[in-house]
Amino acid sequence: MTKTFTVEYPILFSHCDPAGIAYFPRLFDLLHQAMEAWFNDGVNERYSDLLMKKRIGAPTVSMQCDFISPAFFGDKLRIELSVVRIRNSAIDLAYDAKVGERACLKARHSICTFSLETYKAIPVPDSLRERMQAYLADETPVLLRQQPDLAK
Amino acid sequence: MTKTFTVEYPILFSHCDPAGIAYFPRLFDLLHQAMEAWFNDGVNERYSDLLMKKRIGAPTVSMQCDFISPAFFGDKLRIELSVVRIRNSAIDLAYDAKVGERACLKARHSICTFSLETYKAIPVPDSLRERMQAYLADETPVLLRQQPDLAK
Amino acid sequence: MTKTFTVEYPILFSHCDPAGIAYFPRLFDLLHQAMEAWFNDGVNERYSDLLMKKRIGAPTVSMQCDFISPAFFGDKLRIELSVVRIRNSAIDLAYDAKVGERACLKARHSICTFSLETYKAIPVPDSLRERMQAYLADETPVLLRQQPDLAK
Amino acid sequence: MTKTFTVEYPILFSHCDPAGIAYFPRLFDLLHQAMEAWFNDGVNERYSDLLMKKRIGAPTVSMQCDFISPAFFGDKLRIELSVVRIRNSAIDLAYDAKVGERACLKARHSICTFSLETYKAIPVPDSLRERMQAYLADETPVLLRQQPDLAK
Repeated sequence: MTKTFTVEYPILFSHCDPAGIAYFPRLFDLLHQAMEAWFNDGVNERYSDLLMKKRIGAPTVSMQCDFISPAFFGDKLRIELSVVRIRNSAIDLAYDAKVGERACLKARHSICTFSLETYKAIPVPDSLRERMQAYLADETPVLLRQQPDLAK
Repeated sequence: MTKTFTVEYPILFSHCDPAGIAYFPRLFDLLHQAMEAWFNDGVNERYSDLLMKKRIGAPTVSMQCDFISPAFFGDKLRIELSVVRIRNSAIDLAYDAKVGERACLKARHSICTFSLETYKAIPVPDSLRERMQAYLADETPVLLRQQPDLAK
Repeated sequence: MTKTFTVEYPILFSHCDPAGIAYFPRLFDLLHQAMEAWFNDGVNERYSDLLMKKRIGAPTVSMQCDFISPAFFGDKLRIELSVVRIRNSAIDLAYDAKVGERACLKARHSICTFSLETYKAIPVPDSLRERMQAYLADETPVLLRQQPDLAK
Repeated sequence: MTKTFTVEYPILFSHCDPAGIAYFPRLFDLLHQAMEAWFNDGVNERYSDLLMKKRIGAPTVSMQCDFISPAFFGDKLRIELSVVRIRNSAIDLAYDAKVGERACLKARHSICTFSLETYKAIPVPDSLRERMQAYLADETPVLLRQQPDLAK
């Protein structure tokens, strides 16, 4: 049984471009906001304290995202976050975002745990690892449409 | 002989986060700015006219990006753009961004050509296709670190 | 008896700069988000429909803001919005934002009602005017620290 | 004889909203970018070093801006910056932004000099003060449309 962490954000005026749809970098901003909410309320690790007090950052190592349909100004975007894998010093997250039943985007996001003192990667702290495991997906989901060029 | 389109942007205060490094959604914003400059100055198609007069948009269909090293406040980020493939109604772009000789990120970005009247994909206009071909890479570059999970 | 419209937003990672405090243009973004929430939930006029269906925009004509103390990453910013005056084709809003009891900023913001067909100002529609009057402040508040240079 | 510092930025897709005009918080972002360029190239004080090495920040204390006409996607916005006054621990800047001969916005912006170690205001360093004086306006310009309510 996998637990997912779900948030819902309105698509605001400020997210939208001259075509009236959300501009993709601002959708990444919303994914980050979902991740931050997950740290705060899912993992019970205040994200601002993790950075500013414990001096551990979580920079993005890779992001892969398929944008399936547009998010329009006024839509409510529901984002489901789950954990794909917890590695030594990195965490792979998956996001599935919908407006109602309409799929908007699917993403895979890898962050690493990172010392803001040494600017080097550090192992995922055990206390975080344990609390994150509740969100670990049962099996590796097929997240993205096949990208055969990349496999060559 | 492939032509690449190169721009250089300073990493500004507004791009950076409490860790003093560029926040990844704002790096995507810079990739979009590079693409916009390429339309204007490489393809000789004013991007604002394409959207506002010809009513053709270029929304992002997928984005894959590896962040190899941070871009710090005050760095100069040099972005090289090339074309991987021109499909029927989509264009696959590659970006390679460095600070001096240090690799910062590599990305592949697919956009589609899209009618802002019907909100449906349309074929890449021939006149654009021709001018874009000058930037077509000789061979498919291995852009990203292998992502074996995705191939399964 | 004046009614104020109150919202509270967390200061997110993405709002903050290398000094660890909210970057002022992103605080303006939060004020706009508060205004959008006021249209939706205070005035009962869906802001996205006002723009996209009724084709009436509300561009900013002037903004004056004193930043009294920083908003830090992790703070909760409580924003109180009230209406200072409803003019023929413009509305003057006041914002008072605090973290707990600590004053963060005070702003006055004028927007105009604007046709997205003609790109010209239009009178504030009567139906909006009536519903906005519930938020009209009893008396003109002294919003900002005196700016004697401007009075000369 | 006053020297002004002038930069020109294109209004990009990412600056614009569903009405096809620049969203005002992103115009403030461009004013900050102009200020940053002025530090780097006008004052000859690398802004990133000022913050990250000398640990002196320049947070915004107040911003007042009249938006006179919209900046449209594809416009070139020319920003002229001058210094209104250098106070003990604050600097008052003026911006005048145009598209061609059309006035877009006029702003007055106060920043303070601020220790990033103590989070307290500090006097403007003498070496900065001297180099900034070249941009001091001859006489206080009447920058903004009269705001009689504020004077009461």
